Amino acid sequence: MRNLRVDSHRIGADLDAMAAITDPDRPWTRRAFSPRFDMGRDWLRERFEQAGLRASLDAGGNLIGIRAGTDPEAGTIMLGSHSDTVPDGGRFDGVAGVIVALEVARMLEEQGIQLRHTLEVVDFLAEEVSVFGVSCIGSRAIAGVLPPDWLDLVHEGRSLGQAIRDVGGDPSTSALRHDIRAFLELHIEQGPVLEAEGIDLGIVTAIAGIERIEIVLTGRPDHAGTAPMDRRSDALVAAAALVTAIDAEARTRAQGPGHFTATVGEFSIEPGAANVVPGRVRMLIDARAETRAEMEDFLRWIESQLTMLPEGITAESRLLSDNRPTPLDGALAAQLEAAATDCGASHRRMVSGAGHDAAFVAKIAPSIMIFVPSRDGRSHCPGEFSTTSSIALGAEVLAAAVIALDMQKGNRDAPSTD
Amino acid sequence: MRNLRVDSHRIGADLDAMAAITDPDRPWTRRAFSPRFDMGRDWLRERFEQAGLRASLDAGGNLIGIRAGTDPEAGTIMLGSHSDTVPDGGRFDGVAGVIVALEVARMLEEQGIQLRHTLEVVDFLAEEVSVFGVSCIGSRAIAGVLPPDWLDLVHEGRSLGQAIRDVGGDPSTSALRHDIRAFLELHIEQGPVLEAEGIDLGIVTAIAGIERIEIVLTGRPDHAGTAPMDRRSDALVAAAALVTAIDAEARTRAQGPGHFTATVGEFSIEPGAANVVPGRVRMLIDARAETRAEMEDFLRWIESQLTMLPEGITAESRLLSDNRPTPLDGALAAQLEAAATDCGASHRRMVSGAGHDAAFVAKIAPSIMIFVPSRDGRSHCPGEFSTTSSIALGAEVLAAAVIALDMQKGNRDAPSTD
Repeated sequence: MRNLRVDSHRIGADLDAMAAITDPDRPWTRRAFSPRFDMGRDWLRERFEQAGLRASLDAGGNLIGIRAGTDPEAGTIMLGSHSDTVPDGGRFDGVAGVIVALEVARMLEEQGIQLRHTLEVVDFLAEEVSVFGVSCIGSRAIAGVLPPDWLDLVHEGRSLGQAIRDVGGDPSTSALRHDIRAFLELHIEQGPVLEAEGIDLGIVTAIAGIERIEIVLTGRPDHAGTAPMDRRSDALVAAAALVTAIDAEARTRAQGPGHFTATVGEFSIEPGAANVVPGRVRMLIDARAETRAEMEDFLRWIESQLTMLPEGITAESRLLSDNRPTPLDGALAAQLEAAATDCGASHRRMVSGAGHDAAFVAKIAPSIMIFVPSRDGRSHCPGEFSTTSSIALGAEVLAAAVIALDMQKGNRDAPSTD
Repeated sequence: MRNLRVDSHRIGADLDAMAAITDPDRPWTRRAFSPRFDMGRDWLRERFEQAGLRASLDAGGNLIGIRAGTDPEAGTIMLGSHSDTVPDGGRFDGVAGVIVALEVARMLEEQGIQLRHTLEVVDFLAEEVSVFGVSCIGSRAIAGVLPPDWLDLVHEGRSLGQAIRDVGGDPSTSALRHDIRAFLELHIEQGPVLEAEGIDLGIVTAIAGIERIEIVLTGRPDHAGTAPMDRRSDALVAAAALVTAIDAEARTRAQGPGHFTATVGEFSIEPGAANVVPGRVRMLIDARAETRAEMEDFLRWIESQLTMLPEGITAESRLLSDNRPTPLDGALAAQLEAAATDCGASHRRMVSGAGHDAAFVAKIAPSIMIFVPSRDGRSHCPGEFSTTSSIALGAEVLAAAVIALDMQKGNRDAPSTD
C-alpha cells in the first residue's frame, strides 16, 4: 500500500482556524443558527473548494463537499460530523470529524487517487441541542426522520423552518438520501476510557439508547424547627435514598457486558427555604444502555423503586424522551479495525454513550464511528482537548478504510491514479 | 377568684378582621414594611385605643398599647407577639398573640381590675424574615441587640433604617428597656405535638438554638453518557448520602432527652443539565437543639462526615447563622402551669423549635411562652389554623397568670377594683 500519510500540520492548522471562529468572550462557542456558525461554514466552504470539492447545501441545511467518483452507479461514501458547538465547549466535538473528512478528500486529491464512489464530506446542521431545543437536525433530515412539526419551533421570533432556509436549506423538500453506501464519522470520545487504557482509537459498535425519566416526589412541607423528626414526610430525604439506589444500580449494571450509565443530572426541591422541610423534589434521570432489553429492565427497576417509597411520599414518573440504541455496521467495524491494524494504531471496540449524527444516518446506510482520545475525558467545556497527532492517526485510518471500501465494493480493482 | 372569662367571640372577630387585611391574591400575607402591614397596624392601634390603651411606637418600631399601673415603681408586664407574616401564611402566626394580649387588657379594663404593674400590649416589628433578609427586628431593638450595620441593609432602594423610621420608629435612639418585669407571649405551636397528644396548651421552657450550616460539595462535571460509572465524582450522589446520614443522625438525636431537629431545606446542583454529571452541590442544614452541648456535638459530627466523603469529592462548610438556645424563665413557667391548672386546661412543657421574639426579650427580662395547638401542625402556609376556643383558653390562662404575677411581686395585696 502506498504512503497515505495525511498532513497532521494541516489538520492542526485547520482546527486552530475553526477554533478562532468563536464567540470571543466564551471559547469555544459556535452555536448553530448564529452568525458565528455561518462564519465557520463560510470558512469551511472555501476550504472545501480549495480541496477541489464542489460545495453545496442540501435541503436539510447540511454543508456537503462533493468529490465525484469514476462509477456513477457506485453510490456515495460519506465522511463527516458537525461544526456547531454547545455553549463554551466544542473546540473538537464535531469539528474534528469535519476537518478529518476534509483532510482525507484533500489527501486523495493530492495523491491523485480516484475512487469509484462519490466521496462526500459533510458538516451536518445542528448536531448539538440547538436554541430550538432539539438536536441532530441535519442528520435527521438526511435520514428522513426530522419531525415536520419541529419546523414550527420558534426561537426569538424565528421558526426552525426559517432558520434552515437561512443557512441555505429548503425544509419544503425532502433531504432523504438513498445513495449512501457507507458513512464514517470520526469524533472525540468525550470520555476517559481510551486515554486511561492508553489505546489510540475506539471503533464504535453501537450508540447507546438514551431515556430521560422525570420523577416527582411529593411529601409534605413542614416547619423545620417544629415538625418532630418522626412526623415528617421529607421529599428530599426520600429523593436522596432514590439517588443513592439509582447510582448503586447503575454501577452494578455497568459491570455487565453492555454499556450502561444512569445519571441524575437535574434535581430541584420545593419550597427550597432554609426553615422548611422539602415538600417536593423533581429529578431527571438520564439512562443509557447498549441494548433495549437492558433499558427496559432498568425502567422496570425504577418503577419498582417507586412502589417502595416511605409512607407519606408519593411519586409520579414520566418518560420525557426515549431514543432506542443504534447498533452500527459490523462489516464497517471490521474494515476499520483492519485499517487501524494496518496503520499501526492500537484500537478497541466500544459503545458510544453520547448521541451522534451517525445514529440517524445509520437508519438509511451502513454507518460506523471512530473515536480519538479525549484528555481527562473532558467534553462540552473549554478544557475539551484531543491531540492533533491522535486526530491525524484517526484520519489516516479513515483514509485507509475508505480506499479499502472503495476497492471492496463491486469490482476489486485498486483505485485508479492519474 | 372572680370570673376572668375572656370574650372568645371578640377574639375570633379580631382575628377575622386582621385576616381580612391581607394581600388579596395570596392570603394571609401582611409582610413587614409593606402598605398592607401598615393597614394592619392602623387597625390594631385603633383597637388598642378603643380598649383604653395608650398606643405609641417605640424607637424600635414596635407598636405598644400601654395601660398604666398603680405603682410607678412596679415596672412593666408585657404581653404580645407580632402582626407581620411570611408570604402566603400567617393567619395566626404572630397575630394570635397580639390579639390575645389585647383581649387580656380589654378584659381587665372591663372588669375594672387595676394592676400595680404597667401592662403593655406589644406588636413587635418584623418578627418573620423580612424583605431585608433579617428577622425579629423589633424584639432585638428592645433587647439592645439589633446589629447597627443592619440599618444599612437595602431593599428596593430603601434602607432598613429608613423603613423603621417609616413605620414610626427612630433607629438613632436606643429602644432598650430595663423596666420589663415579665414578658409573656402566646403563639401557635406550628407543630403537631399538642394536637396529636390532645393537650390544650404548651408551656415553653426553652427556645431551641438554630444553626444554619452551608455545605458545598465539589466533584467533577462529566458527560452523563460517556463517563463510566466507576470513573465519576458525582457531587449529587455524595450529597445524597450526606442527606441520608443527616436525617438518620437527627432521628437518633431526637429520641434523646432534648428537642432536636436537622433539616436540609435548601439544596441545589450545578450545572443541572440532563446530560451532565453534577459537579457541585450546595446544601443548607437547619439544625435546632435545646442545649448548646447537643448542638456542638452535632456540629462536630457534621465535620466528621465531611472527612469521610468519597474520593474525588471535596467539601467546604460555613456557619451562616448561630443562635444559641434560650432557656425561658422557670418561675414564669410554674406560674403559667398553675394558671392553666386553675383554668382547667391540660398542659405540658415543651421546647420551641421555632425562633420567637421571646428569645430576644429573654435577654433583658424574665420571659415565657404559651403554645396553642396548630391543626395538622401546619404553619407558614394558607392552611395554618388554630381554633378560636383554644386561643381563648390560652388567653384565659394568660390573664390568670398576669393577675397572679401582679399579686405576687412586691406586696401580696389582690389587685384593686374600682
